Amino acid sequence: MIMSKVNASKRKPGLIKKRGKKVGAAPGTLVHIGDISNALTEIHYIRYDRDAIHEQEIADVQQCAHEINAQQTGWINIDGLHNPEVVRSLGERFSIHPLVQEDILNTDHRPKIEVHDDYLYIVIKVLSFNETSQRLQAEQVSLIVGDNYLLTFCEQPGSVFDGVRARIRSGRKIRELGPDYLAYALIDAVVDNYFLLLEQLGDAIEDLEEELIQRPAANIVHRIHHFKREMLLLRKAVWPMREVLSSLSRDEGIITSSDIRLYLRDVYDHSIHIIDNMETLRELLAGMLDLYVSSSSQRLNETMKTLTLFASIFMPLTFIAGVYGMNFDYMPELHWRWGYPMIMLAMAGCGAGLLYYFRRQHWL
Amino acid sequence: MIMSKVNASKRKPGLIKKRGKKVGAAPGTLVHIGDISNALTEIHYIRYDRDAIHEQEIADVQQCAHEINAQQTGWINIDGLHNPEVVRSLGERFSIHPLVQEDILNTDHRPKIEVHDDYLYIVIKVLSFNETSQRLQAEQVSLIVGDNYLLTFCEQPGSVFDGVRARIRSGRKIRELGPDYLAYALIDAVVDNYFLLLEQLGDAIEDLEEELIQRPAANIVHRIHHFKREMLLLRKAVWPMREVLSSLSRDEGIITSSDIRLYLRDVYDHSIHIIDNMETLRELLAGMLDLYVSSSSQRLNETMKTLTLFASIFMPLTFIAGVYGMNFDYMPELHWRWGYPMIMLAMAGCGAGLLYYFRRQHWL
Amino acid sequence: MIMSKVNASKRKPGLIKKRGKKVGAAPGTLVHIGDISNALTEIHYIRYDRDAIHEQEIADVQQCAHEINAQQTGWINIDGLHNPEVVRSLGERFSIHPLVQEDILNTDHRPKIEVHDDYLYIVIKVLSFNETSQRLQAEQVSLIVGDNYLLTFCEQPGSVFDGVRARIRSGRKIRELGPDYLAYALIDAVVDNYFLLLEQLGDAIEDLEEELIQRPAANIVHRIHHFKREMLLLRKAVWPMREVLSSLSRDEGIITSSDIRLYLRDVYDHSIHIIDNMETLRELLAGMLDLYVSSSSQRLNETMKTLTLFASIFMPLTFIAGVYGMNFDYMPELHWRWGYPMIMLAMAGCGAGLLYYFRRQHWL
Amino acid sequence: MIMSKVNASKRKPGLIKKRGKKVGAAPGTLVHIGDISNALTEIHYIRYDRDAIHEQEIADVQQCAHEINAQQTGWINIDGLHNPEVVRSLGERFSIHPLVQEDILNTDHRPKIEVHDDYLYIVIKVLSFNETSQRLQAEQVSLIVGDNYLLTFCEQPGSVFDGVRARIRSGRKIRELGPDYLAYALIDAVVDNYFLLLEQLGDAIEDLEEELIQRPAANIVHRIHHFKREMLLLRKAVWPMREVLSSLSRDEGIITSSDIRLYLRDVYDHSIHIIDNMETLRELLAGMLDLYVSSSSQRLNETMKTLTLFASIFMPLTFIAGVYGMNFDYMPELHWRWGYPMIMLAMAGCGAGLLYYFRRQHWL
Amino acid sequence: MIMSKVNASKRKPGLIKKRGKKVGAAPGTLVHIGDISNALTEIHYIRYDRDAIHEQEIADVQQCAHEINAQQTGWINIDGLHNPEVVRSLGERFSIHPLVQEDILNTDHRPKIEVHDDYLYIVIKVLSFNETSQRLQAEQVSLIVGDNYLLTFCEQPGSVFDGVRARIRSGRKIRELGPDYLAYALIDAVVDNYFLLLEQLGDAIEDLEEELIQRPAANIVHRIHHFKREMLLLRKAVWPMREVLSSLSRDEGIITSSDIRLYLRDVYDHSIHIIDNMETLRELLAGMLDLYVSSSSQRLNETMKTLTLFASIFMPLTFIAGVYGMNFDYMPELHWRWGYPMIMLAMAGCGAGLLYYFRRQHWL
Repeated sequence: MIMSKVNASKRKPGLIKKRGKKVGAAPGTLVHIGDISNALTEIHYIRYDRDAIHEQEIADVQQCAHEINAQQTGWINIDGLHNPEVVRSLGERFSIHPLVQEDILNTDHRPKIEVHDDYLYIVIKVLSFNETSQRLQAEQVSLIVGDNYLLTFCEQPGSVFDGVRARIRSGRKIRELGPDYLAYALIDAVVDNYFLLLEQLGDAIEDLEEELIQRPAANIVHRIHHFKREMLLLRKAVWPMREVLSSLSRDEGIITSSDIRLYLRDVYDHSIHIIDNMETLRELLAGMLDLYVSSSSQRLNETMKTLTLFASIFMPLTFIAGVYGMNFDYMPELHWRWGYPMIMLAMAGCGAGLLYYFRRQHWL
Repeated sequence: MIMSKVNASKRKPGLIKKRGKKVGAAPGTLVHIGDISNALTEIHYIRYDRDAIHEQEIADVQQCAHEINAQQTGWINIDGLHNPEVVRSLGERFSIHPLVQEDILNTDHRPKIEVHDDYLYIVIKVLSFNETSQRLQAEQVSLIVGDNYLLTFCEQPGSVFDGVRARIRSGRKIRELGPDYLAYALIDAVVDNYFLLLEQLGDAIEDLEEELIQRPAANIVHRIHHFKREMLLLRKAVWPMREVLSSLSRDEGIITSSDIRLYLRDVYDHSIHIIDNMETLRELLAGMLDLYVSSSSQRLNETMKTLTLFASIFMPLTFIAGVYGMNFDYMPELHWRWGYPMIMLAMAGCGAGLLYYFRRQHWL
Repeated sequence: MIMSKVNASKRKPGLIKKRGKKVGAAPGTLVHIGDISNALTEIHYIRYDRDAIHEQEIADVQQCAHEINAQQTGWINIDGLHNPEVVRSLGERFSIHPLVQEDILNTDHRPKIEVHDDYLYIVIKVLSFNETSQRLQAEQVSLIVGDNYLLTFCEQPGSVFDGVRARIRSGRKIRELGPDYLAYALIDAVVDNYFLLLEQLGDAIEDLEEELIQRPAANIVHRIHHFKREMLLLRKAVWPMREVLSSLSRDEGIITSSDIRLYLRDVYDHSIHIIDNMETLRELLAGMLDLYVSSSSQRLNETMKTLTLFASIFMPLTFIAGVYGMNFDYMPELHWRWGYPMIMLAMAGCGAGLLYYFRRQHWL
Repeated sequence: MIMSKVNASKRKPGLIKKRGKKVGAAPGTLVHIGDISNALTEIHYIRYDRDAIHEQEIADVQQCAHEINAQQTGWINIDGLHNPEVVRSLGERFSIHPLVQEDILNTDHRPKIEVHDDYLYIVIKVLSFNETSQRLQAEQVSLIVGDNYLLTFCEQPGSVFDGVRARIRSGRKIRELGPDYLAYALIDAVVDNYFLLLEQLGDAIEDLEEELIQRPAANIVHRIHHFKREMLLLRKAVWPMREVLSSLSRDEGIITSSDIRLYLRDVYDHSIHIIDNMETLRELLAGMLDLYVSSSSQRLNETMKTLTLFASIFMPLTFIAGVYGMNFDYMPELHWRWGYPMIMLAMAGCGAGLLYYFRRQHWL
Repeated sequence: MIMSKVNASKRKPGLIKKRGKKVGAAPGTLVHIGDISNALTEIHYIRYDRDAIHEQEIADVQQCAHEINAQQTGWINIDGLHNPEVVRSLGERFSIHPLVQEDILNTDHRPKIEVHDDYLYIVIKVLSFNETSQRLQAEQVSLIVGDNYLLTFCEQPGSVFDGVRARIRSGRKIRELGPDYLAYALIDAVVDNYFLLLEQLGDAIEDLEEELIQRPAANIVHRIHHFKREMLLLRKAVWPMREVLSSLSRDEGIITSSDIRLYLRDVYDHSIHIIDNMETLRELLAGMLDLYVSSSSQRLNETMKTLTLFASIFMPLTFIAGVYGMNFDYMPELHWRWGYPMIMLAMAGCGAGLLYYFRRQHWL
């Protein structure tokens, strides 16, 4: 059974991320905070314009940084934040504020957007649903959107940006527009991914609902609680995302191209839709718990009626039998010829009367 | 019984629509997303002005599109979205943005309004209540309102627009006004339809309430849960509708004619009224669950009092009978002449005393 | 008992009003929607200025309409909306928009205010509480406030406006001011009536609370549910009323006289006060249900303790008696001289021990 | 015990105040509405400037009214609203609007502020907590703040203003500032009094919480309900107070002196703080009810485990004893030499097995 | 066990702070209100500019106050508010409004910000979590931010500012900026401390959740209640903090340096994040109580099924045995050769039939 895994010895990942080593440091101190630490930091670099595309895996960020020029769009993707040095050197090259550098390394952030003079800083969350453990996993992605460059920082290598890379390579519209469109395309990919996630969660929750209605297993309330808990994590990621997209799609001072704002408006609509679905699932879970408690109370009633029925019928009969089991010397009924059949009849009548009474009370 | 159908083998339609094949595609990719797919796409075309009306079923959208001119109003209604080609060719003819074309085909949208330079794009939901399965069904309808044309896209043929068509044919006020009034008339028909729906839902829910008060069946909590679930679907359709109508009726930049805004204001008031009724039903359902749990707890109390009463009276009596059923050689009472009547009297007194005690405790 | 009436065969009036015959009709179609239909339409007509007053019951609205002039204030009150003809002819005389005429006849409206060029259209609800059936009844009243006339449309004759008529006749301040003051006076009378209603409801609910605390009858949860349901109806009428009064008292474009806005501000304050009281009653009802469930759970605990006490004491004793009722040939205790007293003592000791144990557990 | 008083024969004061005699009267009609009616109306009059102070109890308001002049501040305090004549004559002297005069006499008002041309009209509530009956009592106080006078109307004589009077007499800062500072000082005294009230309520509620955790008495849910009800009364008084203070401290058109607005801002902060504390107590009460229900359900579980344990062990044993108490002629076991010890051993084994089973189920 | 301490004789600190001795005093009266009173008031004084730093413990505030000049930043930290004289003399030296002086001494304040002409007055709360008593402790800290000085008032000596002092000594960026940056650094340290606190609370609550799922102890609902109560305290401190930081980071009239506002914006984001985490923990606690009640209801069902099973099987069997234990003279079955085995078979069949019935009801 799945939940045995969930409840297994390995402790659940906490709802509150640990950031102990960071507390008390001066602002701007570069320390990586996060659960995911892969030894290797992979740097993927794409430079393109309408006509040409240049793509490579690089080892040193200095190598590519000077190549970026105003005619082309450069996208540097960092997978793995374990090494603060990469962030520092990129930060120096692109004049990124120390507080922003610090925030990139701290993976315990709400999605947010910060408008700086030369660039936008966007934090989003990529979520995935592990079907085996039935748990959500969140990865933080930071985007720095400059005039002619885009920097993305992921906690680990992943596939969510692959579709966008394919579109760049296949030379479509995306190549004609700048880093802001590219940023839009990445955010769109992330938000589209939420739909998949909600489908998976929705399926898992509706399977649970089906089981709850048909024949609930003993641990079903624990599993409902488990999903309510996962929804708490999901909300923390998705609600602030909506604010980010609202700013991006409405504020003319952030994204100047009205065409790209139109595209972002579309993503914003998707985020609203996702929130709608999410809240629907939350209410469904709440309703399921109500349903469980009500059904449980109903089943208890049924059980107790059964018990009361048996007890109320057999207790008087057993008492009567007990009376005629007494050993008094002078009990005339015991010696009557028809005493036994009469008393049996009396007991049958008593049982039948009680049954009739309970039927009239709608207990049967 | 109805619910046996509801709980039957066929899985309930999920609360979260599947859009798997779409995720990851480039924006503007035309793919149909939806549960309803009828092989045939029906195109209904009406062209009218104050004096004349021209109406036909057509096979190819190119055929009619060039006929539309500034003096007349043309309304093209598409039933069936299975074929993206129809949307593409209409989109080219009327210069509709690729994102809008994509949205028309994706039937998993919240009701919304988008203002483009040459046209309005409106998404609404037509709902129907299936009395047999006691379920809501939602169909998405898209409207493109241009200067002299109106395009409507439905998932399947339906009757909700028939009244409007009849009014066009019978040559009334509707013929003197343009596509914006026609769009109003269609939206009004859809919203009026919600009133019917709420009446049906309201009747079903109040029948359930009646049953709950009179004599609840075993599956009544499941049925209450079923309606709470349907209300979740309804809310997802109706709340955003209100925002759409608010924009349409208030923003002078969207609908310029103040007269039509007045009509739309009327529909807006209806949508508020519908939300009022919807929330009332939701609260009624919540109240019904509370009532069930309270009544259930009360019935349990009654059951347990009955049990306790029987047990508390017969257990001591059976014990006494058991004592005098013991086979000790030296039990003087057994040999008394009046032992049996005396002990019977004692038992009667004991039972009467207990009855009196429970009556004083208000248990009887 | 009152509730037996409430639960009687006659179906409760639905929370959702039926408007079936209207759905699908063209906007502006005049059809009466409502439960109250009295054959007769009564028309009451008062015309007054500072010096003179003219009052009569009339049969034909045409008769009086031409008399109204700029020097006087004319108030036409219609009781009974069964006949659309009356509304149509008044509508023609005073140039009232067809949508407004339609709304006057449709008694399923939220309270609202519409500002038209020549007149204000106000919809309010007059509520009454039937002490016998313990139910609220709502009647819709429409007001058309023109420059020198006021039209009021009621569903049935009632007494709520009588006080205002008396004040007109007795020649006080009301005669010196125009139809807007008269409209204020009528709305004030309606809102004052809500205070009476809330007192009645409050008394009924607090009687229920008293009973709940003293000794709740079996159907008390049904009666609490009944009042929660009535509160839903009340809210639907009162909340929008507040918005209407807010607009009237604040917006200088609606009522131009600042003095009358001051009076309306007073009514607005009353409506806030009524909402406060209403929400207090709602929370009281919710608290009463909580109290019921908690008390019920406490009583169940008491019942079960009684049962457990009896069972736990008498089951071991009965078992011991049963053992010495066995018919084995070789049971030495049976033949001891003091076997019977000893076993009786042992049983007494066993019962006393159990009693002591339960007392230590705070069960007694 | 305290609650026996609370539940005693005297009916609780209703949550909804009676204003029956007033409904239907013309606006501006002076009728006293309220529960407190003392035969005597006491009038206290202080007139002061920086240098001099004049104080007296007067019988007739006319006497003092003409003395007030622009150089001095006059404060007239009325205790007792039973006599409308006092309000009327003061109203005439200071040109107070009839609606305001009416509101002063109607003690069923929410706290509010009204800005008139020549004066401010402020309604506040003075609350006190009766430790014996554990009930809140509310008294309405009206303030009329003019250029050089302050009128205060209380329902009964009280001590809440005594501190302010002492400060006037002792010749401090308060004498140098006008009636608006005096009004501030009175409101500050009233709001400070709320802190005391919340301390008393908080103590009473936390005592209840302590009892709930240690060993709850039978009527504890009734007492929790009692305090929830009192909190409803408190909220009705305090929430609107916050709005009043917000207007007073922010709107430059109401209080022109920025220094006094600073003081009022301080009182406003206090009112926010009081609301915070109040809501904390409300949530604590809600949490206590949850705690009660959970603990109660836990205790029920314990009780039922005890019962089940006894029943499950003794029923089989009693059955076995019953079998060997049967009187069949041919029951070979009865005649075995070791039948009795064997069967006793079998019963002991059966009981031990059941005990072991229940221990493994964590029931012991 | 920890909770035994929590429930021990020492009364919990009340949710509502006592301020009795203060109520009724004139505004501006300097009285210390608070639970923490250490006899000694420690004064720590640092004066620095880019090049030099001067630090000392002083006894008399007059000593240092005159040294502060426009070229340097002076920070005076007061630990211990028991002595109003210190506040008064500092207040005189820096011209601090009497109401502010009063507020500094009153430790029962919500976090707030007040903008005065020459300085900012900020109130914040430093929280700590006592792992032994599992309780939150709140300490109030007041900041007066002037042009070239910063005054901080703490209730007791603590370590939360030590990191900032170290950064001043080590001569970094902090020395180049003025008192507003220093104030930012202190607030940042306090807010960072909240993260630690939430981690500790989160760990404690998730340990409780783990226990609840695995095997809940008897007092688990009391412990859940305990944490819900602590969350109430936490909310009262953190929510207003967010408003303070919002004002500081947005309003250009408060902090003029846009760079420092950027830093404050970062702290503001942290406060939002903390609120997110806090609300997540609150919902988790609510979910845990739901889980407890549901599981408890499920366990009760299991218990009652066991009881009903035993009772329903053994009661009929005991009755049958009782019948054949009766002493009637004429009971033919008793004398049959195979009577005993037949009746034993009949009882076995009866028991098996009941077992089969309950298995079909899914009770086994």
